[in-house]
Amino acid sequence: MDLTRSAAEALDDADPLAGFRQRFAGTGDDGDDRLLYLDGNSLGRLPLDTPGALARVVEEQWGDGLIGSWASWIGEATRVGDVLADGVLGARPGEVLVGDSTSVNLYKLLVAAIGARPGRDVLVCTADDFPTDRYIVAGTAEAHGMAVRELPADIDEGLDPAVLAGALDERVAVVVLSHVAYRSGALADLAAITRQAREVGALVLWDLSHSVGAVPVELAAAGADLAVGCTYKYLNGGPGAPAFLYVRRQLQEELRSPIRGWFGHRDQFAMGPVYEPASGIERFGVGTPPVLATAAVEVGARLVAEAGVPRLAQKGRALTELAVALGDDWLAPHGVALASPRDAGRRGSHVTFAHPGAWQLTQALIDRRVVPDFRTPDRVRLGPAPLYTRFVDVWDAMDRFRTVLADRSYEAYPAERARVT
Amino acid sequence: MDLTRSAAEALDDADPLAGFRQRFAGTGDDGDDRLLYLDGNSLGRLPLDTPGALARVVEEQWGDGLIGSWASWIGEATRVGDVLADGVLGARPGEVLVGDSTSVNLYKLLVAAIGARPGRDVLVCTADDFPTDRYIVAGTAEAHGMAVRELPADIDEGLDPAVLAGALDERVAVVVLSHVAYRSGALADLAAITRQAREVGALVLWDLSHSVGAVPVELAAAGADLAVGCTYKYLNGGPGAPAFLYVRRQLQEELRSPIRGWFGHRDQFAMGPVYEPASGIERFGVGTPPVLATAAVEVGARLVAEAGVPRLAQKGRALTELAVALGDDWLAPHGVALASPRDAGRRGSHVTFAHPGAWQLTQALIDRRVVPDFRTPDRVRLGPAPLYTRFVDVWDAMDRFRTVLADRSYEAYPAERARVT
Repeated sequence: MDLTRSAAEALDDADPLAGFRQRFAGTGDDGDDRLLYLDGNSLGRLPLDTPGALARVVEEQWGDGLIGSWASWIGEATRVGDVLADGVLGARPGEVLVGDSTSVNLYKLLVAAIGARPGRDVLVCTADDFPTDRYIVAGTAEAHGMAVRELPADIDEGLDPAVLAGALDERVAVVVLSHVAYRSGALADLAAITRQAREVGALVLWDLSHSVGAVPVELAAAGADLAVGCTYKYLNGGPGAPAFLYVRRQLQEELRSPIRGWFGHRDQFAMGPVYEPASGIERFGVGTPPVLATAAVEVGARLVAEAGVPRLAQKGRALTELAVALGDDWLAPHGVALASPRDAGRRGSHVTFAHPGAWQLTQALIDRRVVPDFRTPDRVRLGPAPLYTRFVDVWDAMDRFRTVLADRSYEAYPAERARVT
Repeated sequence: MDLTRSAAEALDDADPLAGFRQRFAGTGDDGDDRLLYLDGNSLGRLPLDTPGALARVVEEQWGDGLIGSWASWIGEATRVGDVLADGVLGARPGEVLVGDSTSVNLYKLLVAAIGARPGRDVLVCTADDFPTDRYIVAGTAEAHGMAVRELPADIDEGLDPAVLAGALDERVAVVVLSHVAYRSGALADLAAITRQAREVGALVLWDLSHSVGAVPVELAAAGADLAVGCTYKYLNGGPGAPAFLYVRRQLQEELRSPIRGWFGHRDQFAMGPVYEPASGIERFGVGTPPVLATAAVEVGARLVAEAGVPRLAQKGRALTELAVALGDDWLAPHGVALASPRDAGRRGSHVTFAHPGAWQLTQALIDRRVVPDFRTPDRVRLGPAPLYTRFVDVWDAMDRFRTVLADRSYEAYPAERARVT
């Protein structure tokens, strides 16, 4: 691989997605000192269409239309869900609902799935999954008197399918797994694991937070049963944007949400004495849906659908391959090790490096206008979002990274992460 | 009471809150055919400050500040919670958290409260409470093998305290009750019922959705244990705005949320192996909080705090008293009956009328630019929000109401509510 900056420029010139960059806020500055934002996998950038879309909902629909606007708002959670289903997730209409947080959605589907597998007393997750997933699995298991098989997973390479195979038997009700690991970016084989679990009658509840908009998901083709995910990362829905949930159509009637809110009712405005779940994906609704924030999700989802997930994934692989190659060349001599799968086909769209001074390095990079993420225990995570990150951005970020290593300026930063509380 | 329009105008002239009206969208039209919006108890109007506040969060904090804005966002749910606690709810700092929907918050606190009353096997609610409350009580009781005592309540007059007293014993873990009944506006005695329940060791989980911003709540003075509520009604937070939850400080350590999300963790970014709840109200957090929508809640909460709940409640009583008096005079001869407590001290800020043609009347009124709410079985509900509804608005709305009764034009509308699904 040609590791010159001009080679990176050539990749940008040939990039079919290059035009999308200018549709995001903050991408106009092209100077040498510009911000290199490699944290789009944590909080995606603001699409330029979003303020206008929000203003329409706020000023026209709410301000002028008032309560009458519920005629259109009532269908928003499924309408935007269908945009995600069709353009991003490879799911069918009526299989995706937008609303609540990823954590709440995970809880709802996990408890519902347990209810659909009576007599089974084991949940499976990995010891390295995103904290909220593990906490919810543990808490739910405790509440239901179930055991948890928390599988060891290599924090760089992800879950070994053989380890999972050894943990699957007819006691297992639900397996909770991230499609792309939040730290390393390791990509799980969604279709194969779905089949594996089905053989023993278990359901897999996928967390797509770090894969949606970054790698092909193809839920229907994989026969996936259940999934949840986040919309503020690669989908650019905004901070704390409503999440989504997916339930395979044939499974919907078997599942009951543990939170019987009026927006999951078959006929909510009858306000009748007994809860009767809606017949479709709406049964997983709970409270009044977040109308304003869902409008922002729609803008982000449509941008990803327009760009096309296969093209985004291809560019994501190329961006992270460049980062890996530059890491080998420039960072490894300073003791920085790759902490992601080396094979781009086994990664999402982010890549992680390990170094004992990762916390200090992260602070030093931020001061040099490179935004990565620190991740425990000693990781620097780079998420070059393919919709708006260029190859020269990765090149320049890695260049600044090698500089703070070479001049040891990062050592001046406090070594310990400040505790939030 | 002088029921002339000029008397209503005189009340407006003397109204100390009159100036707040011009701080809301859609209040500039003063013509005879203007929209008379009496549904602020369902969806409050748009405060004129909200679009700017949202634009700051969207364009400056998200667009420019990107992930770095989490330094301020991380405290938003408790900061806006404190605005509500101090200015609206009579609670102490650190007792209120903004986020999730009312339904999800009700579920979290209900399950947490059950856990804090081990050995008790009964939940209490009323047969006339808001549907989502009843459904969540029933579903949670079923999941926990508990019984529900669903008390009869007069749908116009509210719960008889003697009926509640008869249902309280040491088997009762939690009582779920609305402070103001969604249909009739009947006001429960929050302090007295809290004491009543405490005598048998039960907790009361109050739903403040229809009282917050409309009547004094004074949670601390009442010694209230638990509450949830909605911010898109009298707080004008916008459609589907994040809700709030309240837990009395001394009780917080005893309660564990059933949904163990990372935003309830003591040190979420340690991403450690075990869930350890945060020590304060933050332990009831779940997923990443809805940053954009919470900014809109703050604007609405500050407006209510500025106006002052006692003044709002006083005006709310006066507005509904006018509606009741005009109803007696103008509507009763057409067979319309008051379906709310006649004593203004026993009502929230809305008032309801019963008529067999309520559904048709509602449609006819909407076509005449009066916006009430239909409520089952045969109710027309009027919510004159005291922040922006004038006495002449109530007078004119009642005038149009008597007209559609007198000319029987409402009879041309279909008699049956369309089914949503």
